[in-house]
Amino acid sequence: MMARALRLAERGAYTTRPNPMVGCVLAHGDEVVGEGWHRRQGEPHAEVLALQAAGDRARGATAYVTLEPCAHTGRTGPCADALVAAGVARVVAAMRDPFPQVDGSGFDRLRAVGIAVEVGLMEAQARALNVGFVSRVVRGRPWVRVKLACSLDGRTAMASGDSKWITGEAARADVMHWRARAGAILTGAGTVLADDPSLTVRFATPREFVPPLRVVLDPGLATVARGKVREGDAPTLYLHAPDAKPPRELTADRAPVPVRAGVFDLPAVLALLAGRGINEVHVEAGATLAGALLKAGLVDELLLYVAPVLLGDTARPLFGGLGFTEMAQRLQLEILETLRIGDDLRLRLRPRAGATA
Amino acid sequence: MMARALRLAERGAYTTRPNPMVGCVLAHGDEVVGEGWHRRQGEPHAEVLALQAAGDRARGATAYVTLEPCAHTGRTGPCADALVAAGVARVVAAMRDPFPQVDGSGFDRLRAVGIAVEVGLMEAQARALNVGFVSRVVRGRPWVRVKLACSLDGRTAMASGDSKWITGEAARADVMHWRARAGAILTGAGTVLADDPSLTVRFATPREFVPPLRVVLDPGLATVARGKVREGDAPTLYLHAPDAKPPRELTADRAPVPVRAGVFDLPAVLALLAGRGINEVHVEAGATLAGALLKAGLVDELLLYVAPVLLGDTARPLFGGLGFTEMAQRLQLEILETLRIGDDLRLRLRPRAGATA
Repeated sequence: MMARALRLAERGAYTTRPNPMVGCVLAHGDEVVGEGWHRRQGEPHAEVLALQAAGDRARGATAYVTLEPCAHTGRTGPCADALVAAGVARVVAAMRDPFPQVDGSGFDRLRAVGIAVEVGLMEAQARALNVGFVSRVVRGRPWVRVKLACSLDGRTAMASGDSKWITGEAARADVMHWRARAGAILTGAGTVLADDPSLTVRFATPREFVPPLRVVLDPGLATVARGKVREGDAPTLYLHAPDAKPPRELTADRAPVPVRAGVFDLPAVLALLAGRGINEVHVEAGATLAGALLKAGLVDELLLYVAPVLLGDTARPLFGGLGFTEMAQRLQLEILETLRIGDDLRLRLRPRAGATA
Repeated sequence: MMARALRLAERGAYTTRPNPMVGCVLAHGDEVVGEGWHRRQGEPHAEVLALQAAGDRARGATAYVTLEPCAHTGRTGPCADALVAAGVARVVAAMRDPFPQVDGSGFDRLRAVGIAVEVGLMEAQARALNVGFVSRVVRGRPWVRVKLACSLDGRTAMASGDSKWITGEAARADVMHWRARAGAILTGAGTVLADDPSLTVRFATPREFVPPLRVVLDPGLATVARGKVREGDAPTLYLHAPDAKPPRELTADRAPVPVRAGVFDLPAVLALLAGRGINEVHVEAGATLAGALLKAGLVDELLLYVAPVLLGDTARPLFGGLGFTEMAQRLQLEILETLRIGDDLRLRLRPRAGATA
C-alpha cells in the first residue's frame, strides 16, 4: 500500500513545487477504498482526495500516506482534521514532515483522538522522493543536482568548444525529466554566451509540468540582452553582483548576490533560491561553475551522462579549477545508480561526506 | 546441453593456450552420460574425456561440442575418429574450427560415416569464448584487450605520476582474471620505469593457470637491467628496435621489431606475438601506448575500470596523442557490458567499425 502511495505521489513530480509530493491510499485490509495524490499548490492534498474517493468507506480504514498529514491551515484545511472527521482508524506514514508548521503536530492531532499512528514505513524511499523539499526545509538550501555530459575520457567538448552532441537523443530526452522536476535550472553567463541554451523542458510526449525557473549567474548582467534563456514561457532570474548596473533592456527578474574576489558567494545563491521556494536546483553549466560548486561542497548529486566516445587529451575537461596535485586530495563519490540510456551510460553519484577538498 | 558444454570449456580459460577452450557433453535426450573439457596443450581433448566418462553409453548418444572436433593428428589423435569409433549418433557443434588443419574436415569425416551433424547452436557465445584463438587463426593477430583504470573525469594519475590506487581492491582482483586468460601481457618501457609493475597473476584464492608471457616494448633495451617485470615465474620477452645493442645483463628472451620514426610498428608486434601462439594480448600500459594502439585501429576491446573519484583537470589523461580537434574526429565505441565491482564500475567496450581516426 505504501509503495502504491509513493507511486501516486511521484505523479506530482513536475507540478507540486514548492510543495512536497504526497500520495495517500485508504484501505480496509487488502482492499483499496480510495486514493489520491497532490497535484499542485493550492489544489487539494492527497489525503483529502483519497477521502473524497472513499466516501463512507473511509470509516475504519487505514490511511497510508507518504508524508505526515498537515495540521495547519494553509491554502487548504488541515488534513489531520479531515482524517479524524472521516473516522479513519489508523494512519501509517512513511515520514514525519520536517516543515516547521507540521513537524509532528499532525501525528499529535491524530493520536489525541485515539487514532493509531505508525511512522517509518518505506521512509528511505519517501525521503528520496522529496529530497529537495526536505533539503530546503531542514538545511535552508535546495538539493543541488549537477548534470554533465562527457566522453569516456572525461571531456565535455572539443578545445574549440564544439560539443554538439556528445550524448545521444535518448540521453538528451532523459535530461528533460530531470529539468522538469527541478524548481530551478542554474547556469552561468559563460554557458549562455557559448552554447545559448534555452533551458526549457521539451517532452517528446506532452506531459503536464510547471516550467522551472531559469537562473543565470551573471555578475555584470552582460548577457541579459541575448540568449534563448530569456525566451519562451519559463521565467528567468538573473543573479548579479551588487554593484552591477541593470541595463534598460533587462525585463526579466533579477536579484543581487554577494560576490567575493570576483566569484559569486554560492551558499548565498542557494539560500536565495531556497527563499524563493526552490526544492531542487538542476545545474547545467560549464566546467567552471560545476567545479566551483563541487569544490565548495555544495553538490548533492551528480547526474553524469557518459557517451562511449573518446575526444582526446586536448578536449575540454569535466571540471575546472579543482587544482588537485596529490592523490590524497582526490574527491571521492559514491555510485548510486548506473543505467544504460540508448548508447550512453547514465551515472548518478553523490560526493562522499567529508570528501571535498 | 550446449550451455553446459560452454561452461565446461571455460574452465580451461587460464590453461589451454594456445589451444582453444573446448567443452563436450554426451547425452541421451536429457540424460548426460559423459562430459569433458580441454585443460592443457598435450592433454586429452574434451571429446576424448567425455567419451572415456561415457564408456559404452556413448553409443547412440548426441555429442554437444563447443568447437568442431579435430580431424588431424596433433599431439593427440583426431577427435572426429574417436567419436565415430564410439558409435556417437549425432554431433551438435557450436562453431566450425577456423584452424586450417580442421576447418570443416572434422564435420566431413563425421558426415562421411552417416553421423548427423548440426552446426551453429550458441555460436555467438562459442565465438566470444575463443575470441583470441579465432583472431589469431583468422586474422593472424591476437585479440587485443586494453585495460585501463581511470577516474570519473578520465584521469589515470596525478600530474606527478601518483596513481596508487585509483580503483579499489575488488577491481584490482578482477584484473587478475583478465591477465590469467591472456597469452601475453603487453606494456611499454615507460610504464616499467614509472610504475615498476610485476605484471604477474596473483589470485587471492589459488587457481591453476599458465603464467602469461610478459612483453615489454623497449626500443633501446634500456630497462632490461631493472624491474619486477623480469622477476617471478612468468617468462618475459623484450621487443626492441633492430639496431638496439642487447646489454650483457639481458637474460630474458628478446626479439627485434621494425621501428618507424622512433615508433614501434605495432602490426608487426602483434604479428610476432601471433606467431608465438598468443591468442589474447592484455595491454597494461600508459596513455602513449594505449593511445597509439587505439589510433592504429588495433584495439579490439577496452576494459575500463572507472573509479568514482575526481582527480581534476591537471591530472594525466586516459589516452595520449589522439590529436582530435573536431567533434567529427571523435572515436566511437560501443558499450558491451557494465558491471559494478566493489565501489568501481567496469566497462567493456569495443571500438565501432571504421570509427578510428
